[in-house]
Amino acid sequence: MIQESPYGLRVPLDIDFDKAVELARSALQEQGFGVLTTIDVQDTLKKKLDRNFRRYVILGACNPPLADRALHAELEIGLLLPCNVIVYERDGGTSTVAAMAPLPAMGIVKGNSELEAVAREADERLRRALERVESAAGS
Amino acid sequence: MIQESPYGLRVPLDIDFDKAVELARSALQEQGFGVLTTIDVQDTLKKKLDRNFRRYVILGACNPPLADRALHAELEIGLLLPCNVIVYERDGGTSTVAAMAPLPAMGIVKGNSELEAVAREADERLRRALERVESAAGS
Repeated sequence: MIQESPYGLRVPLDIDFDKAVELARSALQEQGFGVLTTIDVQDTLKKKLDRNFRRYVILGACNPPLADRALHAELEIGLLLPCNVIVYERDGGTSTVAAMAPLPAMGIVKGNSELEAVAREADERLRRALERVESAAGS
Repeated sequence: MIQESPYGLRVPLDIDFDKAVELARSALQEQGFGVLTTIDVQDTLKKKLDRNFRRYVILGACNPPLADRALHAELEIGLLLPCNVIVYERDGGTSTVAAMAPLPAMGIVKGNSELEAVAREADERLRRALERVESAAGS
């Protein structure tokens, strides 16, 4: 079941990190989100600071028709794009996939009804993607 | 002078888009932010939807020591990283540089004092970067 945090939607999974990244990418694609950017957090902290960190990626997911609508509704909404989806490892070879919740993020931008409609649709699609990940992981 | 929006900080400039991108990258670097990702919005909308749009980039800026502190204070803060900086063209060969305001974004995550301290420092550094862009552009 999807867990909610103040700014995200989360599914804890009983599968390993690599498999979780693969399922997340594929579920996002099914919902029309391409992954435009991938940040390997573990690798970045190691290279820049020589700090050890768990395996962790930030995927920048973009649904082009929704992004196009959002940018036409509010030019500077690029400050909140793309939608971040993170995957990180937990103890014992398990992992978590979480997505930015577009409703609170877009809620920063008040009173733009087209933007709210876009945020609602993005929220629904991200929830469907997380449900798909969860079901494919058999969690 | 830096203009504030509910979720961003903005400097309108009397210089063209390419020069603005160059100044933004260099000012971010001076404040310890590497640009981890670059999304060419114009190119993405053209390729994915065959839609014409103004020149517009989303730079994913990351200050590694601040990111490291934020991730240790709150594991899922990767949902709000990196800090987005956008550059877009306006009419007549002018352009705007804007940065996500970390304080409202981090404000979604309530009651974490270390995270608030990180957001305050990121906010100060992004303001200094925008001031530097403005002064270098002679606006």
